[in-house]
Amino acid sequence: MTELKNDLFLRACLREDVERTPCWMMRQAGRYLPEYRATRQKAGGFLNLCRSPELCSEVAIQPIDILDADAAILFSDILVVPEAMGMDLSFGAGEGPKFSDPVRSLADVKKLPVLDDPTKELGYVMNAVSTIRHDLNGRVPLIGFTGSPWTLATYMVEGGGSKTFSKVKSMMFNEPETMHLLLEKLADSVAAYLNGQIAHGAQALQIFDTWGGILSTGTYKEFSLAYMQRIVDQLTRESEGRKVPVILYSKGGMGWLEAMADTGCDVIGLDWSIDIDEAKARIGDRVALQGNMDPTMLYANPDRIRAEVKDILARFGRGNGHVFNLGHGITPDVPKEHAIEFFKAVREESVCYHQ
Amino acid sequence: MTELKNDLFLRACLREDVERTPCWMMRQAGRYLPEYRATRQKAGGFLNLCRSPELCSEVAIQPIDILDADAAILFSDILVVPEAMGMDLSFGAGEGPKFSDPVRSLADVKKLPVLDDPTKELGYVMNAVSTIRHDLNGRVPLIGFTGSPWTLATYMVEGGGSKTFSKVKSMMFNEPETMHLLLEKLADSVAAYLNGQIAHGAQALQIFDTWGGILSTGTYKEFSLAYMQRIVDQLTRESEGRKVPVILYSKGGMGWLEAMADTGCDVIGLDWSIDIDEAKARIGDRVALQGNMDPTMLYANPDRIRAEVKDILARFGRGNGHVFNLGHGITPDVPKEHAIEFFKAVREESVCYHQ
Repeated sequence: MTELKNDLFLRACLREDVERTPCWMMRQAGRYLPEYRATRQKAGGFLNLCRSPELCSEVAIQPIDILDADAAILFSDILVVPEAMGMDLSFGAGEGPKFSDPVRSLADVKKLPVLDDPTKELGYVMNAVSTIRHDLNGRVPLIGFTGSPWTLATYMVEGGGSKTFSKVKSMMFNEPETMHLLLEKLADSVAAYLNGQIAHGAQALQIFDTWGGILSTGTYKEFSLAYMQRIVDQLTRESEGRKVPVILYSKGGMGWLEAMADTGCDVIGLDWSIDIDEAKARIGDRVALQGNMDPTMLYANPDRIRAEVKDILARFGRGNGHVFNLGHGITPDVPKEHAIEFFKAVREESVCYHQ
Repeated sequence: MTELKNDLFLRACLREDVERTPCWMMRQAGRYLPEYRATRQKAGGFLNLCRSPELCSEVAIQPIDILDADAAILFSDILVVPEAMGMDLSFGAGEGPKFSDPVRSLADVKKLPVLDDPTKELGYVMNAVSTIRHDLNGRVPLIGFTGSPWTLATYMVEGGGSKTFSKVKSMMFNEPETMHLLLEKLADSVAAYLNGQIAHGAQALQIFDTWGGILSTGTYKEFSLAYMQRIVDQLTRESEGRKVPVILYSKGGMGWLEAMADTGCDVIGLDWSIDIDEAKARIGDRVALQGNMDPTMLYANPDRIRAEVKDILARFGRGNGHVFNLGHGITPDVPKEHAIEFFKAVREESVCYHQ
C-alpha cells in the first residue's frame, strides 16, 4: 500500500500530535459542487452513481482536489444495506428515498436476511472502496461509513423519510421484541459490511445516527446506542498495521455524550447545538471530538465564516483530538467558494494551537 | 370574575402544593379530535376558525370536556402577529403557512410597524380570549400564548416552513443588525399582544420557541433567548390578584435550561430528549417544569402509555412544580382514546406523590 502523505485526520482521531487541525465535511461530495452535479448527470441519477465504482471515486476525490480536504469519504448511501437485504429502494426526482414495501410486522422482520458476505451482497460498494483508495494514491485517508441500525430502521419501517416517525415509534413502543430483532439483524449486517469496507481499504469509519435525536434518553440507549455498541464490538479495529478509528455521530444527541464515549469509539461527532469547549470538558479526556460548525454558517460571507472557525478553534484550544467538521452535512445551495474559504480558514487559523 | 374551580395548573406553575399533578397537552385543541375537525369544517378552514371567537371557544373547550384537561389554551396561530404587522398569510390545503412577500432586507424590516394596540390590531384574538374565558366559567385556567420572536422571524424571512433555514440564517450571519431590528420589533409587538391577552382574561402565558433548537449556544442566546427576555421584562405579571405564570419552551434547547431559567420565567417546558429528573436537578429549585412525554408515545397502547406516565412521575418524584404535558404537540393521527387514557393515567398515578 502507498504510504499516506497526509495522515493528520487519523492522528487527530487518535488524539496524537498534529501540526494543524484536519478538516473534512459531511456530504463534502455533494450537490453544492458543480463538478459533482456533472458526474451525477453523467451517471444518470443518484443510485446509478452509487453503483459505479469509477464515478464514486471521481466524486469522492473532487473535494480533495477542490477544497484540500484532509480525508475522503466513501461515496454511497446508507440505504444500500436494507436494499441488499432485499428491500426495493428508489429515489424519486427531487424527493427522498422510498421503500415500496416497508417493514411493518414480526413476519416482515423474520424474512430479512443477515448480511455476512459484503463482497457478494454489496460488491459494488466494496469495489468503490478499493477504487477510491487506489485513486487517492495516499493523498489522504479514506473514511468508510454506515447508517446506525436505528436510523436505517426508521426508513425501513416508515418506508421513507418522516416528520412524526409514527410508524417506527409505534413498533418500538408496541412491539419492542420486533424492533429489537430488526435492530439486531441490522447491527450484525452493518458490522459485516463495515469490516468489508476495512478489508477493502477504509482507514476510518463513521456511524451516522441521523435520527437518534428523536428518541428520549431511555429509548436512545435501548434502541440506538446499544446497537451501535453491538457494531463497535464486532469491528476489526486495526488494518495495515494502523488503528482504524471509529466515529459515532448522533445528531441531537448532545445530552448523551458520556454514554456514547462509553462504547469505546475513538471519536464523537458533535452537532452545533453544543459548544465544543463544553463537550471537551465532558468527554475530551476519553475521545477525540469532530465538529462542530453550524452548516448554515456557510451561507455567511467568508469573513464571518473565518470568525466562526476561529471561535471554535479557540474553544477547543490547545491539545490533541480535534477533527474540524460541520455539525451536519453541507447543504446543496451553499456557494462552492464559501466551502473553499472555510477549509482555508481552518488550515490557517489552527496552526497556532499546535505549536 | 367567576372563581376557579380547578386551579391545579396555576398552583403547579408557581410550585405551590397540589393534590395531584395537573396535565394539559400542546395542540390539545387539534386534528386528532373528530370534534375539532367538525368545528373546523363548519368554520370553512383554519384561518376562518382562528377569526371566529365563538368557534375558537368551542375548540378550546373540547379538550376540557373530552379529556378533563387541567388548563385550556387560547386557540389561535402564532403567525397572526406578523399578519397583523401587514404580512399576507395563507395556509394551502394540507400545506404549512405561506407568506407571499417574505422579509428579506433592512428596508423590509423598517417598513414593519410595532404593534401597540392589540385590541385594534388583533381584536379578534382578544375577543377569542374573552369568549373562551367566559365560556369556561371558571372550570380551569386559560393559557394565552405567542411564538417567540426568533420563531416568528424564521417564518417571516423564509416565507414559510423550512428544512435548512438558509434564508433566516443568512440574514442572521450576514446582516445581524437587520435581524436584531426585526427581533426587537417582534418582541415589543409580542409583549403588547400578550399583555392584551392578560387584560382580556388569560391567566398564564406560554412562549413557543419552536425553532430555538436550530441555533448554536451563542446564537440561541443572542437571537432567541435575549428577545424572550425582552418580552418577559415587559409583561404584566399579575392579574385579578393572582400571579400570571410565564412558561418558556425552546424545543431542542435542553442544553440551555439554566440560561432559560435566568430570564425570570416561572416554568420551563421540556421536550422529551432529557429525563425530567436531570432537568429537575439542574433548575428545579428555581422554576417549575412542564413536560415531557414523547408525543409519539400516544401511538402506543394504553398500558404502555400508563407505564411511561408512571416513569416520568417517578422521575420527578415528590415535591412541587410539575405540570404534566407532552414534549411537543400531539400529532393528528393519534387515536383520541389514547389521549383520554393518557390524561386518566396522569390523574390516577400522580396522587401518591402529593400526599
